[in-house]
Order: sequence, then C-alpha cells, then structure tokens
Amino acid sequence: MEGVIRTHRAIECSKELIGKTVTINGWVQKNRNLGGLLFIDLRDRSGLIQVLFDPEVAPDAFEIASEIGREYVISVTGEIVGRDPKNINPKIPTGEIELQARQIHVFNPAKTPPFPIADDRVDVDESIRLKYRYLDLRRSKMQETMVIRHRAMQSVRRFLDRYGFLELETPILTNSTPEGARDYLVPSRVHPGSFYALPQSPQLFKQLFMVAGMERYFQFARCFRDEDLRADRQPEFTQIDIEASFISREQFLSLMEEMIQTLFKETINVDISIPFPRLTYQEAMERYGSDKPDLRFGMELVSLNEILANTSFKVFASTIANGGQIKAINVKGCAGWSRKEIDNWGKVAQSLGAKGLAWLAYKEEGVKGSVAKFLSAEEIRAIQQATQAETGDLLFFVADRPQMVANVLGEIRVRLAQQLELIDPNVFKFTWVTEFPLLEYDEEDGRYYAKHHPFTAPMTEDIPLLETNPDQVRAYAYDMVLNGYEIGGGSSRIYQRDIQEKMFKALGISLEEAQEKFGFLLEAFEYGAPPHGGIAFGFDRIVMLLSGRSNLRDCIAYPKTNSASCLMTEAPSSVAQAQLDELHLRVKEDKEITTNN
Amino acid sequence: MEGVIRTHRAIECSKELIGKTVTINGWVQKNRNLGGLLFIDLRDRSGLIQVLFDPEVAPDAFEIASEIGREYVISVTGEIVGRDPKNINPKIPTGEIELQARQIHVFNPAKTPPFPIADDRVDVDESIRLKYRYLDLRRSKMQETMVIRHRAMQSVRRFLDRYGFLELETPILTNSTPEGARDYLVPSRVHPGSFYALPQSPQLFKQLFMVAGMERYFQFARCFRDEDLRADRQPEFTQIDIEASFISREQFLSLMEEMIQTLFKETINVDISIPFPRLTYQEAMERYGSDKPDLRFGMELVSLNEILANTSFKVFASTIANGGQIKAINVKGCAGWSRKEIDNWGKVAQSLGAKGLAWLAYKEEGVKGSVAKFLSAEEIRAIQQATQAETGDLLFFVADRPQMVANVLGEIRVRLAQQLELIDPNVFKFTWVTEFPLLEYDEEDGRYYAKHHPFTAPMTEDIPLLETNPDQVRAYAYDMVLNGYEIGGGSSRIYQRDIQEKMFKALGISLEEAQEKFGFLLEAFEYGAPPHGGIAFGFDRIVMLLSGRSNLRDCIAYPKTNSASCLMTEAPSSVAQAQLDELHLRVKEDKEITTNN
Repeated sequence: MEGVIRTHRAIECSKELIGKTVTINGWVQKNRNLGGLLFIDLRDRSGLIQVLFDPEVAPDAFEIASEIGREYVISVTGEIVGRDPKNINPKIPTGEIELQARQIHVFNPAKTPPFPIADDRVDVDESIRLKYRYLDLRRSKMQETMVIRHRAMQSVRRFLDRYGFLELETPILTNSTPEGARDYLVPSRVHPGSFYALPQSPQLFKQLFMVAGMERYFQFARCFRDEDLRADRQPEFTQIDIEASFISREQFLSLMEEMIQTLFKETINVDISIPFPRLTYQEAMERYGSDKPDLRFGMELVSLNEILANTSFKVFASTIANGGQIKAINVKGCAGWSRKEIDNWGKVAQSLGAKGLAWLAYKEEGVKGSVAKFLSAEEIRAIQQATQAETGDLLFFVADRPQMVANVLGEIRVRLAQQLELIDPNVFKFTWVTEFPLLEYDEEDGRYYAKHHPFTAPMTEDIPLLETNPDQVRAYAYDMVLNGYEIGGGSSRIYQRDIQEKMFKALGISLEEAQEKFGFLLEAFEYGAPPHGGIAFGFDRIVMLLSGRSNLRDCIAYPKTNSASCLMTEAPSSVAQAQLDELHLRVKEDKEITTNN
Repeated sequence: MEGVIRTHRAIECSKELIGKTVTINGWVQKNRNLGGLLFIDLRDRSGLIQVLFDPEVAPDAFEIASEIGREYVISVTGEIVGRDPKNINPKIPTGEIELQARQIHVFNPAKTPPFPIADDRVDVDESIRLKYRYLDLRRSKMQETMVIRHRAMQSVRRFLDRYGFLELETPILTNSTPEGARDYLVPSRVHPGSFYALPQSPQLFKQLFMVAGMERYFQFARCFRDEDLRADRQPEFTQIDIEASFISREQFLSLMEEMIQTLFKETINVDISIPFPRLTYQEAMERYGSDKPDLRFGMELVSLNEILANTSFKVFASTIANGGQIKAINVKGCAGWSRKEIDNWGKVAQSLGAKGLAWLAYKEEGVKGSVAKFLSAEEIRAIQQATQAETGDLLFFVADRPQMVANVLGEIRVRLAQQLELIDPNVFKFTWVTEFPLLEYDEEDGRYYAKHHPFTAPMTEDIPLLETNPDQVRAYAYDMVLNGYEIGGGSSRIYQRDIQEKMFKALGISLEEAQEKFGFLLEAFEYGAPPHGGIAFGFDRIVMLLSGRSNLRDCIAYPKTNSASCLMTEAPSSVAQAQLDELHLRVKEDKEITTNN
C-alpha cells in the first residue's frame, strides 16, 4: 500500500516540480483517447491534474488505464512534465504541467454515477442528490460550500477565543421547553414514562453559565424544532450561541459586528464596513414593511396619511378614520406596464391578504391609475412629491390596518426588486434592528407571549408600561439582518427578580406557574446573577449567504427533506418491538388515533 | 448601566495601574472588617482583587458595602493603590495592589450558597453539587477544568485545520445502528410509528465523507449510548471524530501523536515525547494483562509456564495441561506483609473470578508462601530469576485460563500500584496498542461480532484465516492508551468489496442481511471508495486526564447521574398527554409491562 500513497495533492503540482516523480491519488474526472495517447483528468479535493498515459513510455500502465472509467479511485506515479505552450490550460491552476504516468494502481472501480460529478451546472433532481448525497458532495460547488462552512467555523472560534469567550457544551438530552415551539422527545428507558427533549436552543443553560461566573460563553450549538418545515427550515440546525456578562450593549453589539466583519474577510475575502446602520423595529416596519429589511435597494414605503388626511376619496378616508394606514411604493420607470401586469400585482396583494392594490402611473400624457379620478390634483401632486415620483414612475398603494399594509407592501417591495433585478447579489447590506416589542398578543389564547423569550429585558423607560400598556413595551432586543435575512437575534436578559416578576405578570403567568416552569433558573438567579445578554446566529443561514446559495439544504452535509426525512439513510424508520418494549412504549393503531384525537 | 460596567478584569490590575481609576465587576468572595475598614475579595473569572472600603474616603460606598454578603454581584469603581509591603500577598497575582473603592453598585444580592464557593477543597456531596451546578461551576477547580476543556478544543481544531482536515457536522437525528449498543430513540411526528435514533458515533457518515471525496474530516461529535452507566460513562459524550483518505497508517498515527503532543503543550504546558511506544494487543495482554496498560509503573506479568512445565505441584501442572497459564507479579519490598493483608488480596482475586491467589515471599529468613512447600528449590530459584525477585519481595501468582489470568493479575497490578503509591500523577505515559483481534465470539449468540465494527480492515496476511480461524485474524486497529485509559481507538477501514463480503461471511451475516442493515453504505462503496481510516478520541476523558480529575462528571458542564438524570433541570420528566398524542404514542401501564415482558 505505502508505495501508492500520495506524495502530493493535485494542486501542489506546479512548474517547480517539473522533472520530479510524484504520486497522486484521486478520482477519474474525465478520460479521453487522443492520437494513441490516453489523458485522464485526476481529481482530488484540492483540484485537477492532467495525467498522460503513453503506451511507448509505460505500456502496462497504459493498458490498465485504458480499462478504467469515470469516478474510479486510482493512484498514479510518474513524472511532472511541462506542457507544450499550445496545450496550456489557463483555467486550472495545474494547467501548465501534466503528469507523465509510469505506474497506476486502481484502489476501487466505480459504477456510473446517477448524475454527472464533473459538471455541477447540470440540474439534478434534488431527491436524487439527497439519496446519493456522497456523490453530490463530490461536486465542486458542494465541496466549496463545505469548505466555506469549515472556514467560517474556525474564523468565528478564533475570534471569540481571542476575546476570552469559552466554548462550553450544553446537553442534547434535556427537558421540554416551556413557552417554546414543539419539541422532539426522547423516551427514557431508566425512568419509564419520562422523556428527555432535544433543545430548541441552549438558552437556559447559557444563562446559567452566566450565573456560574463563566462571563463569556459560546458554542456551535445543535438545536432542534419539530415544526412543519418550510424551504428554509431544518428539524436540526446549528446556531452560534453566545452570551456575555459585565459588558454594555454597545460594547457587545460592536464586538459582534467585528466578529462578522472578520468572518466575511476570512472566509470569502469580502470587506464589510462597521458599525452597521441601525433601525428600530418601528422604523423598519414603517420604511420597509419588514423587521428584516433588505437594504440592497430602496423602494421604501411612504406614508400618505398626512397628505390624505382630508381626502374626499371614501375608501382612503375611512381607512384613516379607522386607524388604518395608506402607504405607497414607487416602482421606478414602470409607468408603462400593461394593465395585465399591474393586475397581476393586484392579485399578489390579494393573496397576501390585502383587499386590493391601488396604483397611479405618472405618464408623459398625464396621471393614470385606479385611484386617479378619486384624488384631487393637489393630492396627486403632494403624493408625487412625497414618493419622489418622476414621469415614468408607477406607484402602488395599500390602504389597510398598519400590520397588513406592512406585510403586503413589504413583500411586494421584495418581489418587485427581484423581478426588476434591482438586487446586486455580490453586495452585503447589514443592519441591526432594535427595540422590538417585548410582547405579542395571541388572540386565540387570549394572552401575551414573549416575542423573544420570557427573560428578555424590557427597556428601562418602558417598565412602567408593563402594567398599563404591555403591547407598547419595547425590549432590549436586537436582530442582525443581512440582505433581508435575520441572521442573528439576541437581547439583554432580565437579571433582577422584581422585573422578572413584572414580566411574568404581564404574561399572565402566576409565580407558582413560573416556579414550576422555570424553577431552577429562577432559583439560580437568587444566588447572584450578573447583568448579562447574548445572541444566537443561524449558522446554516450565514453559510448560505457566504456561499451564495439559495437553499439551506445545500449548506448542510446531510440535510433532511421537508418531511424531515433523510433520503440517504431512510431515517426515520421502524424499530424492533423489543426496543419499544424496553421503553415501555406502544405505537397507537390507526383506529386508536382516530378515536383519541 | 454603562458607568458601572467594568473597565478591567481583576487580574489585569497590577502595579502599572497604580493611581488609575478602574471599575471591576464580580462576586464577593470574602468580606471582613478590620480596624474600622472593610475589605472585600472581589472575584471575576480572571481571579481575585482586594477592595478596600474606607468610611473616611467614601462613606456612602462604605455603608452599602457593609450590608452585602458573600456571592453578591457588585461593581466597584475606585483607584488602584499599592499595598504596604507588609500587606503584600504573594499568593495571588494582584497581591501587590488593592482597589480603593469610591463607588459601589449592587447588581444583585445572593442567598447563602448551599456549599462554600471560595474553598473548593471542601468536600461537598455530589448530588448537591449537581443540583446547584451553576454554583459548583463557580468554584475555581471547576472553572479551571472548563478552561482546559475550551483550550483543548481550540488546540485540536487549530492543529487539524492546519493539516487540511475539514470540520463537518453529521446529523443527530439519524437511524438506529445495527450491531451497536442500545440507541436512544426519537419518535417521529410526521411519520407515525417511525423513529430516529441518536448516533452512537458518526461512523457511517464519516466513511461517507470519504466516499464523497472530503479526504480529511473531523468533528467534535456528540454521541449517545443508552447503556447502564458506570462511573466513567455518560449517556451523551463528546468524541473527537477523525477520518482520512489516501494516507498511510504510519503517517496517520504519527499525525495523531503530533496532535496529542501539541494538545498537551498548549493546554497544560507539558512536553510529551513522540513517537509513542507500541504494543501489540497480544504483548499488552501478556505483559500487563490489559489492552490499556498503565505504563507509569512496572510490575509486569511474568509467565512461568516454561519454568513450571514439569512441576510436580498438581494445581499448576493441571493448569498447564489444560492450556492454562501461570503468571506472577513481583510486589517489590512487600514480603513483610501480614497474612491478613495477603489474604485480602486473595479475596480481591476471587472477586475478580480467580480461584485464588498463590504467593511466595522472599524473606531474609527464607522463602515462605502458600505454594512454597509444593515447589522444588530449583523452581523457586527459577521463579525468582524470572521475576527478578530480590530478598524482601512478594510474588502473587494466578493459574487459570489465559483470559482470567490476564484479567485478575492485570487488575491486581493496577490496584497494588495505587495502594503502594507507585504512580506519579504528574507523568503521562502514552502507548499505541495495535493488532487487535478482528472478531470476538459471543457464546450466547453463537456467532462472531466485530470487536471494533464490521468495517474494520483485517490485516492483509491474516485474510486467509477469515474462513479457517476467524478468532486468529488480527485487525488494522489501534488504540491510543494513556495512563491506563483508552483515550482513542481507530482502524483502517475495509474499502474493497471482496474483503467486505468475507467479513460479513465471518460474522455470519448474509449478503441480503448486510444489504438491509448497511445498504446505503455498501451502495456508496460501489461508486468509488478511497482507502481510508480514522480514529475517535474520548474528549471528556482527555479533559479528565489533562485536568487531573478522576471523574468524567467533573469535566462536563452539565453531566447526568448514573441513572441518566440531570439533578439541576430534573430531566427526564413527564410530558403533556397532548405531546404523546401528536406522536401517536402511549406509555404502557405497569400491568401491561408485567404482562408483555
């Protein structure tokens, strides 16, 4: 074996090695006969090298090489030779040389792969890619993504280590989370009828690290949520989990900015300027209709309530009278759109919940549009000024409850930008969104829930509102937003008993109930809790943005499908009855399921 | 808040800062009144600083400080002053200065902890420590262990990154492991009656990374085993999981030695010399009665079969005739032990399964011992020579089946060394144990099992024995052993189809069965598997040895008890019926359990 083990990786073979004997190991990317010679592109993780088999030079090797096919695993020993100038391939780093084979050893043959490995522009059905993930991962784009993922992990670790953060592990077998999403459960064999739960995040554990005096903690934490999956969700995901004590919010946010700046520089060599701009939640919703605005383009939402305060157009007037909003976005240069095109956007608005989408087109020949005739010339001029509309621009309006206006126009803004190709995919626009509402009212349950979690600190000046106007209380919570994605979210935590009690009261949780749900955390806080706060970044999503992918599954080595299955291993699967017996469990029959639910 | 946030960590306050104003945040370690002044030892993660409250200088701060107790979380702002030479405390790094307090802010009060935080020599019941883990973790020895754990992780990562290993994650929600220990199961909600399993190791996934051309992989992998726990086992544990392609075994082992050398240097500043000595499995068993020998002391097992080949002592003669062994260890200088002491060791031997423990004492006044009168003077002399016994030495003998001799004498050797304090706790003795048997026969099941796992490669020269003498086949498997602990184990893997088929045959697994159990891995191997191998290190155990602890639980932030419970969070626990309904599960009643099992 030893004699066929590689001496160099493909990429290391350059002109400096000409005349030297090397052994390269790898996969056959391509093989072709040319004028009685045989050329093989040999691929290893580092890249490609061209191997030349000449029957005159090495007849045995030539014969063996003639019999092998793509994706065979081979070892080739030979001499590095320079290529004829006319054969130099500037597209690959080893394009100036080739390997003149003396010996070949076939480690393993390969069946023809179900899709091409060499060319990853070929579109392959995702279910085939996931079933043969070990082949999909051989393709260069996937290799590149995994390398970026690796580099990103090392960069973040180095940074946090440098700033005194300790990487500490928290349990995967833990307890069900009160007030959270749906947990994955793990039945206990030793304690029949009891269950562990897989963590949705290490939130409680990291706060306990602060009580424990660890001061600065981080972890690449595996987290689990048994939710119905969307394209950008996975049942298990990785978050960069961070918590710190005795540090001001400003110091902390600026440290996180520096971390992300370093990450982008070290993984994809992109310069990010810091500090990041900041938007309060309210500003973000007002201007972009979203708490994770994409700032790579403008097209801001413009409020027309003031201009239309006394309008005689009844629809708008009654919207304002009922506490609603009228907002517009300016679709630059699209006044010439056909009625059909505009109507299509109206349908989009309706599918998002709006009653409709009003429009005005500032054309050469005058102002047209669904609301043109209902508005005064004065109003139309004022609207033009407020939206900075020029001749040739198209305005879309939504008049509705503020939340609906934001949702609909916010979403239409993004879709328009995509369709109009206003977005430069090579630009990274960061922002902090701050001052999130502390609480959210759940109509169904008739109570408030914590928007972030029940330990998020209310802003000091809003604490009095906890009893009187809970929905107006803002939190010391912050999201880091990149190109329309929330990539991280965090907050300062409540560490004082009296404020925690007020918070539970606002949530309608009695102290007894709180004790039952969060007992050990509340008890821990009695023994000397420092002021602390933290953040969690969605690492899979960061990798997605770093590597320019549009799908989280492409950024995880072995992902699950939308039905939480692994197509390669066929997990989940049935297990032996004996295993269930040991756990004292029985799977209900269909009949029982119908009866009991 | 900002005004009370720390400017320095305690340890950063040195003579260079004298005259400067600083703000320190931390916990009250100790407070005492002395001549009208108040002294507080303030502790943060970095260490301690003495704070002086003088009623003349800062009456308000003095008053507040007089009211606070141990473990209160405070912020102190004041001036660094030099201590009187007579008050210098050389025991702490900040012993030359103190902080003259101007202002104090109390972040949080603290109840009296259930055990002392400042003095971790105090022996505290472990269940109390685990229930209040957040307080236990404040104690300096635990802090130190967690810092070592952090440093060890970073050191290994940096090393492997430098050598081109990619850190890649594998799923936690996966499938039940065939041929493994007991799995933790996770019921699927989306696929009723189906289950995920938590991984016992990422073995299959890491081999698939090799098929995927990743070439060099590592991960700090969380692994799970639902076993009955011993003191040195945890239901979830962390292993440094490593796999590599296209590298010779020798290159790989020497890389791993260098990694461990670097780790010890970077975490605890200990120099380890490489290469490590090697023992074959057979040698280790012969000389130490263990496949994880502690080499910090001698007391090797000496075979006496040759010397006693023709003995007239029937017990020994029949042992040899039945294929058994007679071995001795030399307990240096203990010939003077009382009969009672020696008998106690006889009881130990019996509790380990031996029929008894024979002995000979080479005393000034002549040879005494249980077998003295049965052996000839010639034999006694020969034994003395073989065991290098001098006057004053005591020999213990076991005569039994080879496995029993090894188990009993191997264990007695270790316990003797502990009792006789032959072990220097500051010494690290590494060894590789190689050439493990490939297979183990299970009497109960009447079949062979893979000693490591079914993909471990047999040694080339032993492959013919797979069909004729399976129990004589040695594997390309290697364990790294440190001070009597197996800290890592690995092997070269089978990557050729014909050898894999021979292996399954030896295991009594039909190809259909293999297909069913390992289908996707076997299929993957058809598409071009490179030669590869790897290792997994028990990270928790390495931390234990690095930090000089004797208990794995002390090296894990939030460990489980021997009954797999977390005393702090009370996991596992009961869950709502609605959660089980969603999973289509029912916990069996006690009655059913009795009936069905």
